[in-house]
Amino acid sequence: MNMIVERSVFYISDGTAITAEVLGHAVMSQFPVDTISVTLPFVENVQRALAVKAQINAICQQSGLRPLVFLSIVTPEVKEIIMQSEGFCQDIVQTLVAPLQQELGIAPAPVVHRTHGLTASNLGKYDARIAAIDYTLAHDDGISLRGLEDAQVILLGVSRCGKTPTSLYLAMQFGVKAANYPFIADDMDNLKLPAALRPFQHKLFGLTIDPERLAAIRQERAENTRYASLRQCRMEVGEVEALFRTQQIRYLNSTNYSVEEIATKILDIMGLNRRMF
Amino acid sequence: MNMIVERSVFYISDGTAITAEVLGHAVMSQFPVDTISVTLPFVENVQRALAVKAQINAICQQSGLRPLVFLSIVTPEVKEIIMQSEGFCQDIVQTLVAPLQQELGIAPAPVVHRTHGLTASNLGKYDARIAAIDYTLAHDDGISLRGLEDAQVILLGVSRCGKTPTSLYLAMQFGVKAANYPFIADDMDNLKLPAALRPFQHKLFGLTIDPERLAAIRQERAENTRYASLRQCRMEVGEVEALFRTQQIRYLNSTNYSVEEIATKILDIMGLNRRMF
Repeated sequence: MNMIVERSVFYISDGTAITAEVLGHAVMSQFPVDTISVTLPFVENVQRALAVKAQINAICQQSGLRPLVFLSIVTPEVKEIIMQSEGFCQDIVQTLVAPLQQELGIAPAPVVHRTHGLTASNLGKYDARIAAIDYTLAHDDGISLRGLEDAQVILLGVSRCGKTPTSLYLAMQFGVKAANYPFIADDMDNLKLPAALRPFQHKLFGLTIDPERLAAIRQERAENTRYASLRQCRMEVGEVEALFRTQQIRYLNSTNYSVEEIATKILDIMGLNRRMF
Repeated sequence: MNMIVERSVFYISDGTAITAEVLGHAVMSQFPVDTISVTLPFVENVQRALAVKAQINAICQQSGLRPLVFLSIVTPEVKEIIMQSEGFCQDIVQTLVAPLQQELGIAPAPVVHRTHGLTASNLGKYDARIAAIDYTLAHDDGISLRGLEDAQVILLGVSRCGKTPTSLYLAMQFGVKAANYPFIADDMDNLKLPAALRPFQHKLFGLTIDPERLAAIRQERAENTRYASLRQCRMEVGEVEALFRTQQIRYLNSTNYSVEEIATKILDIMGLNRRMF
């Protein structure tokens, strides 16, 4: 019997390791190998680095395979320890910095915790992010139709088409104040744009979804109800899409997209700025 | 008078461009140069790529400086068009793939939209993410103390110490079901752990914050109130920290950390799994 030996992959950072993890995962997904992933954030000092090095070396010893290491560590003496392990190490930031140094003719000046850190200089921007989250929560699911003049986008759609996760992602990732408003079953007999939304036509953005996928999502929450029936889902989606078209509201079918993709497409289509935090 | 010419930086992807933007930004932050950033997501076809190439070349022509380009595009013919522009192009994924190909002795098999895409194979995981967001919203700010047995972590702290953004980030980024419970001013005379939380001692995690920062945050919302006074903030933080210590609840001071850092530290300390979406 053959034994499949899985290759160990480490994502290591002195920060959250979110970037190392996302990028390293994209790289690894191109290779048809079985892997075991370990993410190690906050590797910030020599002591912790030595422990990580020992962990990498032990796996190398046991499996006879060099672990693959994606790392992002700024402090040279901490990074050097990991680089001297038995792992196959790639520094995800430095790999791109070195060629740029030549192009720019300037030496790089490394900064610790640059990606997802909080500093005095970005505190104001950070407060704007929290304000966007607060706004979005207060204007989720049509809770409040007051203060819509402060919204940067107002998402419309039937129940469970993805409005809430998209709104929260827009606020969290991009600092966008996103309200959302649901069309419910009772609205369907004579579907109109609510009067409160009409002054904000230019901020409206519709989300739609395939009725089959919608029915499957609703079944998870309310099995064997009219709400979750395919017939009801078809009717609601049909009515709402017709409204989007007659009112000339831009819209997107969310069925085959992740929250990240939907949010990014909305920014792109609406011409909204992407902030970074 | 000297004119400062800003260097143009492009973050280009056939997907959301979130990874290109975050990583490229980390790289650029190491160089003391003034830049103008342009992020271009969904560069998926030849036509769009040709338009982007023209945009890069026009800037090069006008400024006399090659734009710096961080890209992540899988389809070879689309990518090749950007690579042939006048920009200084670096492929953030391929740069790490090539050395790995040698180490692994396997040819890579590129996959479009690998990072933030939605496919049949990750739909189940994706539903778990949405379920975590639903759970977290339903258990925000002590709204419901039912179903806490399903929580993976329950955050505790005073009003405006960062519980809600942290809970939402845990759900959105890591698929963690995170409840949170606020201690309010009225609780302070005889601060105790609510009976409903006691069975879940092992899931509790405290957030605290410097009183000065807390007062500044509260002033933004309720200027010149007792709620926002430094004296009140000092008292609340003191009482709650004392409770965390006597009840042996692990806790973290959120003052100098971003939402990403707080969330990642909580996962790390609680030993919770990081999922990726």
